[in-house]
Amino acid sequence: MKEKLYIIKIGGALIDNEELVDQFLEQFSGIQEKKILVHGGGKLATTLADKLGVEQKMVNGRRITDKDTLDIVAMVYAGGINKNIVAKLQQKKCKAIGFSGADANLIKAKKRKHAEIDFGFVGDITEKSVNKKLISKMLKWELVPVFSAITHDKKGHLFNTNADTIASVIAQALSIKYDVELLYCFDKEGVLEDVNNSQSVIKNISEKEFLALKVEGKLHKGILPKLENALGAVKNKVNKVFLIKETELINHIENHHAGTEISL
Amino acid sequence: MKEKLYIIKIGGALIDNEELVDQFLEQFSGIQEKKILVHGGGKLATTLADKLGVEQKMVNGRRITDKDTLDIVAMVYAGGINKNIVAKLQQKKCKAIGFSGADANLIKAKKRKHAEIDFGFVGDITEKSVNKKLISKMLKWELVPVFSAITHDKKGHLFNTNADTIASVIAQALSIKYDVELLYCFDKEGVLEDVNNSQSVIKNISEKEFLALKVEGKLHKGILPKLENALGAVKNKVNKVFLIKETELINHIENHHAGTEISL
Repeated sequence: MKEKLYIIKIGGALIDNEELVDQFLEQFSGIQEKKILVHGGGKLATTLADKLGVEQKMVNGRRITDKDTLDIVAMVYAGGINKNIVAKLQQKKCKAIGFSGADANLIKAKKRKHAEIDFGFVGDITEKSVNKKLISKMLKWELVPVFSAITHDKKGHLFNTNADTIASVIAQALSIKYDVELLYCFDKEGVLEDVNNSQSVIKNISEKEFLALKVEGKLHKGILPKLENALGAVKNKVNKVFLIKETELINHIENHHAGTEISL
Repeated sequence: MKEKLYIIKIGGALIDNEELVDQFLEQFSGIQEKKILVHGGGKLATTLADKLGVEQKMVNGRRITDKDTLDIVAMVYAGGINKNIVAKLQQKKCKAIGFSGADANLIKAKKRKHAEIDFGFVGDITEKSVNKKLISKMLKWELVPVFSAITHDKKGHLFNTNADTIASVIAQALSIKYDVELLYCFDKEGVLEDVNNSQSVIKNISEKEFLALKVEGKLHKGILPKLENALGAVKNKVNKVFLIKETELINHIENHHAGTEISL
């Protein structure tokens, strides 16, 4: 039987709230099984860009990572946020070790190519991008990897990569060796039928149901890429994938089902 | 016989010059023996502080690291500079892995205590601060640790720590296991008798000679803490310590003596 491994992703809304971060990290530290944390960026990068007068360019509603923006996200994600999370986990006796994808070539990306739009320094990844051998070694040593959403191309360039996707591909890559449960933690109770009713959690979403919900326009924009990454994981051998509320982490792990489960 | 290990420290003047960094990293990558890189911060942190209107406070000529300044140096050192160096080394087929002292509790510091001055978030360290077991494991795996000048206290706080001191204490801690050569790389040919004459390199400085030069006022301010850290290393079992010009790294390693050697 494979050993259990939790891969847990936290996002911006949490990271921007120091008290919530601390509560979450307390719960995360309490997980007895092997675990990996992946974090996004929060508003800090946008705030810093504003202060520095670095304009955030959007094309068709999607952010462009120019050189100045890349410099900012590398500093904020891999430096400020990552090292503060690691220091706080160390305080809680969790043997955290912070990484970008450049470190030890842990996640090697390809610059995004698009027929019409130049997204700039954005890296695309698949499960093959992940140095699973080295991550497994770290886990074997009882270390707890903490990944920021920065990757590289092994040609000297750093990239901005979606943190949901990083969590998904790490989960896929490590599923060969571990019994992986991928948890997307966010500020909702799960995927909601009615976004204004926290009681309306959809307990299970299959691929078919996801496509139906998408066609019906029932999924608000923010949750779409998360669900796509979640589905990508279950389609590629990740044993369990959930979307849960950040404050429900330990409850989910102990009672085995909070939030929305994504399945085939 | 112990295995050879180079611990190499680079500073601000180099880091601020992209072309020089690239040349240096090319030479660094060429070292066949085990190696560790320690880097300082350069002017980037000061420039960012200026842009953000974070005043840099000095007391008796020494910098105070308040919370805003700490946030900036954590971002710049452990994020921007560290990850860019790691990505460039990866390009050069050097298996770099970037760290702050918080990662895996690699360097645990104590907040500096001073009778009169509150230096803020400044961490003091000794050889006992270093997690030498884990660093040795990384080296055994052929990884190349790259340390930024950020430490932590295992109580959830990051600290700003002098990079010369970090290089010195890592060298001291690893000398039990390795034949360590500590190289302080900077923009001079070595310690100069006459600072305006690059030919006036002092080949060797013993502790006695250092104290005499200090009393005579022959050492300019910038080099004093570097020499003190260098002497701290030789006094604590580090086999060889040199101050060399950055561009002389490979020449030094192949010809065994560029710059100034510090000895007991």
